[in-house]
Amino acid sequence: MVKSILLKKRPQGKPSVSDFEFVTEDVDLQINEGEILLETSYVSVDPYLRGRMSDAKSYVPPFELNKPIQSGIVAKVMASKNEKFAVGDFVSGMLAWKTQQTSTGEGLTKVDASNAPLSAYLGVLGMTGLTAYLGLNQIGKPVAGETLVVSGAAGAVGSIVGQIGKILGLHVIGIAGTDEKIELLKTEFGFDAGINYNTSKDINAELKKLAPNGVDIYFDNVGGPISDAVLFNINKFARLIICGAISVYNNTDIPKSISVQPFLVKNSALMQGFIVSNYAEKFPAAITHLSRWLAEEKLTYAETIVDGFDQIPNAFIDLFEGKNKGKMIVKI
Amino acid sequence: MVKSILLKKRPQGKPSVSDFEFVTEDVDLQINEGEILLETSYVSVDPYLRGRMSDAKSYVPPFELNKPIQSGIVAKVMASKNEKFAVGDFVSGMLAWKTQQTSTGEGLTKVDASNAPLSAYLGVLGMTGLTAYLGLNQIGKPVAGETLVVSGAAGAVGSIVGQIGKILGLHVIGIAGTDEKIELLKTEFGFDAGINYNTSKDINAELKKLAPNGVDIYFDNVGGPISDAVLFNINKFARLIICGAISVYNNTDIPKSISVQPFLVKNSALMQGFIVSNYAEKFPAAITHLSRWLAEEKLTYAETIVDGFDQIPNAFIDLFEGKNKGKMIVKI
Repeated sequence: MVKSILLKKRPQGKPSVSDFEFVTEDVDLQINEGEILLETSYVSVDPYLRGRMSDAKSYVPPFELNKPIQSGIVAKVMASKNEKFAVGDFVSGMLAWKTQQTSTGEGLTKVDASNAPLSAYLGVLGMTGLTAYLGLNQIGKPVAGETLVVSGAAGAVGSIVGQIGKILGLHVIGIAGTDEKIELLKTEFGFDAGINYNTSKDINAELKKLAPNGVDIYFDNVGGPISDAVLFNINKFARLIICGAISVYNNTDIPKSISVQPFLVKNSALMQGFIVSNYAEKFPAAITHLSRWLAEEKLTYAETIVDGFDQIPNAFIDLFEGKNKGKMIVKI
Repeated sequence: MVKSILLKKRPQGKPSVSDFEFVTEDVDLQINEGEILLETSYVSVDPYLRGRMSDAKSYVPPFELNKPIQSGIVAKVMASKNEKFAVGDFVSGMLAWKTQQTSTGEGLTKVDASNAPLSAYLGVLGMTGLTAYLGLNQIGKPVAGETLVVSGAAGAVGSIVGQIGKILGLHVIGIAGTDEKIELLKTEFGFDAGINYNTSKDINAELKKLAPNGVDIYFDNVGGPISDAVLFNINKFARLIICGAISVYNNTDIPKSISVQPFLVKNSALMQGFIVSNYAEKFPAAITHLSRWLAEEKLTYAETIVDGFDQIPNAFIDLFEGKNKGKMIVKI
């Protein structure tokens, strides 16, 4: 029995479970020479998948209708006719939302379950950690003593960005949506301060108090009115890393914000879109740093683990309600 | 008799003549040891001066009320007690809107009237040319064969940007506000194509036709809806040079535009505010290039020269109505 989750229709606005189709096939998957049989262990659900569900032009091609969704997955090798993989190995890579599948092994990386929990390879030691590390360093170019603001700060990427910021000697302020998350930022992840955007009457004014020297680096996961408020506080030569815009991903009309151009001119500031796959040649060095900090316990991470293959679409949809703390992962 | 123009009150919205005060003093200016006496020959009026007339935080301090405005000026040395300057020399630099003034010579550059017309030192061989050259090269990083779009294309900076783009082998499209200006772009400045934003029904669609390979570099002098339309056409790794936002300088409320963040993420694109004074160490090399191209007649420039000291405020105000072609200069 192999279960799959297909994209049935392209979501309009916020995705709903009815956009997905569950299929169960009574098959016995066979492998050819050079292939491996994989059983899915952990599935990563991420906001960027929303973009691939639309058919708008983007940096990765859209998902095809009536085909399985793909995302970051850790899987176990159940059978192998490929000498690079042995039965019992775990691998991570972009795989389909299926309980079992075959693969040539191309694009898959072996992961070591004795080194870190398997789910970490979808988070802090996977695309999440790489996005945080490389986005902050390659575009943010942080200098100790500067002030960093992170939006979506309690999310998978944001919580790691803030911690790396502290390791690098920055003053770090996080923006998140509940008091519980703000507390977590300060106690668990070492942020200097936090702002709850749902209860704050004036994010701009609150930032002025918490960042009296202004904002040098903004790691932006959300876009929208939160990012507008940050703009009023940027310093000369500020760097704004645009990593995501979850607040507007589900908009069906074209979202409007305050004009950023006058702020960028006034401050000689830089705003740059960041996509981790453009920096593949820097992955090994980044993983080395992240692994060392993890081993030294300078870096911790939060996961929200949901149980059961059938829960994948719900877990994905919950991202847009901010129901996750840290990386959202489904355990099969 | 020395005439001066002071800032009487900070403009609300579009500046008006009543924001300025004309003063005539019956004085005979004397110079001390180390000083020179200057008579103003040419005065540059520029959109960025609008920013200094407000008291909002910006990259240069605001003008003080009841003090003369300052801008780029070419002046003649009438008397000298400074060995670096002889009577009859011409100098350029930031000076006051006065018919005569004294100076220590600090920050002034001697200019050679036999090399180029004096007004050129306020334009193509001054801040205007430097802004075009350094903005395009330092942020735009052009590669031959790429597509460049320039807004405010018939303006002082824009018309030079387009010509440098052609010298560097780019496909160049200009956006301006009259058919006459579009014609000038193509016949005088060698742009490949132009769009009249006042008569175009859909700038976005027109750009798609004129830039079928998409836009790699956008030199933005205007902001607002024109820049919104360009965003829909940017390529992966596009560079957007934010040099000015004249379309919103006079807004009294905070201008809104479409959210740029999703466009920047999708395209791994960069948007950076450009202020020429941050690149002072690159001025000599830039001037060398600009002078050579000017001598080789690869570079031409347009000027709108208005006559008379009393016309300075009107000439400045006319910038916001697009009445200038190329650099707006007042001849005294």
